[in-house]
Amino acid sequence: MRASSDTQPLEKQNGEAAAMACTPLPGGGVSSARGFKAAGIHGGFRRDPNRLDFALVVADEPAACAATFTQNVFCAAPIIVSKEHLEGNSFGTARALVVNSGTANAATGPEGVEDARETARSVADYLGCPPCEVMVASTGVIGVRLPMHVFETAIPQVVESLSVAGGADAAQAIITTDTHSKEAAVTFSGDRVGYEGCVFTVGGMAKGSGMIMPNMATMISCITTDAPLDPSTLHDVLVRVVGTTFNKVSVDSDTSTNDCCYLFASGAAASGLPLFQPGSAACKAFEDALHAVCLNLARQMAADGEGATRLIVVDVQGAATDADADLAARAIANSPLVKTAVYGHDANWGRIAMAIGKSGAAFRQEDVDIDIMGIPVCRKGLPVDFSEEEALRRFERPEIGIRVDLGAGNSSSTMFTCDLTHDYITINGDYRT
Amino acid sequence: MRASSDTQPLEKQNGEAAAMACTPLPGGGVSSARGFKAAGIHGGFRRDPNRLDFALVVADEPAACAATFTQNVFCAAPIIVSKEHLEGNSFGTARALVVNSGTANAATGPEGVEDARETARSVADYLGCPPCEVMVASTGVIGVRLPMHVFETAIPQVVESLSVAGGADAAQAIITTDTHSKEAAVTFSGDRVGYEGCVFTVGGMAKGSGMIMPNMATMISCITTDAPLDPSTLHDVLVRVVGTTFNKVSVDSDTSTNDCCYLFASGAAASGLPLFQPGSAACKAFEDALHAVCLNLARQMAADGEGATRLIVVDVQGAATDADADLAARAIANSPLVKTAVYGHDANWGRIAMAIGKSGAAFRQEDVDIDIMGIPVCRKGLPVDFSEEEALRRFERPEIGIRVDLGAGNSSSTMFTCDLTHDYITINGDYRT
Repeated sequence: MRASSDTQPLEKQNGEAAAMACTPLPGGGVSSARGFKAAGIHGGFRRDPNRLDFALVVADEPAACAATFTQNVFCAAPIIVSKEHLEGNSFGTARALVVNSGTANAATGPEGVEDARETARSVADYLGCPPCEVMVASTGVIGVRLPMHVFETAIPQVVESLSVAGGADAAQAIITTDTHSKEAAVTFSGDRVGYEGCVFTVGGMAKGSGMIMPNMATMISCITTDAPLDPSTLHDVLVRVVGTTFNKVSVDSDTSTNDCCYLFASGAAASGLPLFQPGSAACKAFEDALHAVCLNLARQMAADGEGATRLIVVDVQGAATDADADLAARAIANSPLVKTAVYGHDANWGRIAMAIGKSGAAFRQEDVDIDIMGIPVCRKGLPVDFSEEEALRRFERPEIGIRVDLGAGNSSSTMFTCDLTHDYITINGDYRT
Repeated sequence: MRASSDTQPLEKQNGEAAAMACTPLPGGGVSSARGFKAAGIHGGFRRDPNRLDFALVVADEPAACAATFTQNVFCAAPIIVSKEHLEGNSFGTARALVVNSGTANAATGPEGVEDARETARSVADYLGCPPCEVMVASTGVIGVRLPMHVFETAIPQVVESLSVAGGADAAQAIITTDTHSKEAAVTFSGDRVGYEGCVFTVGGMAKGSGMIMPNMATMISCITTDAPLDPSTLHDVLVRVVGTTFNKVSVDSDTSTNDCCYLFASGAAASGLPLFQPGSAACKAFEDALHAVCLNLARQMAADGEGATRLIVVDVQGAATDADADLAARAIANSPLVKTAVYGHDANWGRIAMAIGKSGAAFRQEDVDIDIMGIPVCRKGLPVDFSEEEALRRFERPEIGIRVDLGAGNSSSTMFTCDLTHDYITINGDYRT
């Protein structure tokens, strides 16, 4: 049902999913769930000795593990090696994720793949586990080999630093041009879903900022939980949740060579109890909690896009199909003209109309309604008088909502992006040199 | 055949088509061909009285006419009316194209369509022709009605100003954020193609700058010729030429609501002689000449993209299919990270690798060669040592060539774009307010 065509704002939504049965855990992150430790140190991958650049997340025991990876053909060496380890060798269980920033280990050929394997082997030696239980990730400049000598001192040091309070440092160590680290965690009760007395935690960290329009995966994100799930169930849930959270973020329409999202499940909050079964109430509660964490991280990522001053939440409703909704939302979120208009505090809905018009989504222009920040600006494809002063006031908000009703059906899609600013140009016109 | 994988530059091309049998006509434009007059005046659509904002191109007699139009669903009222006139009423002949800048007459509903019809009727009255022989075009802000009272004085004034030397003023009157007007013209001889003693002219004008990634058509362009062709042949040639020229330009990946390209043929250079037949040598010579004019205008458009400091010519070779070549070239040309790297004079080929990797084109990363400005920077997917000093020197050139060989087949595609700069943000963050 499309909204009525008068000039009332379209019904309110804020891009957050409907209320869930989970509870935010303030200050929580990737080591909040029981059974995990983490650390972030300055290992020497970056010149600035005050900058953390090396992170390790470790499960006390082999944990169920699932992941989604970039679909970029130029996928990086650590992606290749982690896929091998996860899919080929370790039957979906893993002990650790190790991440360096500064160098992406992408476009580095067979030598880069061997470097990534060697990194996993070294970490495995210190942890006393098979190399195939170590996942590896890198982020930074493309086309440069990893400085392998740095790992020799950095690995023992980061293993030494592991602690249940280390999540914040780990989150700090994986960022590149992000202006701050990104963590989120929630808890949910096992009561009423067959795990009376158990309290489960889902927590994670992510990095984003530039080269961000994940396709099937995300930048680098690591989520942990102490809920008990097998690797296959974990994978199914992760793919669904990533599809509506990280994969709906676009900073600049560019898809990194190194995107990856890892999810580890220790089961430590329900020792001796059966695994969450697919389709069970417990599994649903877990999926809701995971969604809350990933959505929170996705929104942080969009809001902290390179040079961003505003989070933009694009809601497209009334599309004929899910694919059409996604096409239209993505066209708006990727339009430089829409993003610069938000930067300029210009409620220029003509650019939004242009973006959906070129998107390939099916609709008729005389059926389209557009709201910007709750202000009706277009009804049935025609301009609506609105107060420019009120629009300017609302542009002061940190989050700008753009809502479009195509009037062509019942499908909807929400995308998260940011404005396009002088600072984006400065950051990316002067990144490598 | 892909290039050899050593570090020699890939073979040189400059994005211009191979040498043609036509001759540039310096200073030529839309009124250079015999049988046409043009004018550009300040009609009052813009506030600045020194700024030309109203253009008219007129054929002395009804001329064959063809056009390509935007495929944006939110297509503007003048597009709707011109399509009606061209396809429905006038059997492919027309007398005039009238263009106003300042207001796009897009998203203006049935009233906007009626405004465009009224404009055509008024011009037709002054020219003494049926309204269906008048094409209309508008460019400027979306969602605002045309100021119809302005036409009352502007139309007689622009008709009064028509002259065979008026092309330059017309080209000036159609621009918006372009920094200069865009004209091109060539001549070709009828000798050896069955029209001995005849000299034919093809000349035109275009506007571009922002909201530029034409899909099936272009911003606003008008080309005239005095060669004799029927409307159907004219249409076929135009569609082919637009596909390899204007449709290969992308300034910001955004497709305007008002894109259109008109081609008028008076036949005045071969009075009494038969029409050029499809497939004939004469028709081929005409197509080459039209291609030269459109390519020249397309390159001018990309080089003068909003805020641009550099023309970027992206050549993708060795693709498995034409579609793959286009996907890869378009991904590079639309990547904000590639475009800001050029702005920052950074030969950051990792971003080019990223762009082709996400494009959807089929290839293997170990087969890819990349050159920037003739400097080999990547061979078989791996970095090549190169002189950063030499790269910095070559970045001083006005035109930056990016060449990629995917090593996957024999198809190729060339795209024209520009760098992404602080000025693009300034222009578009402050356009309407």
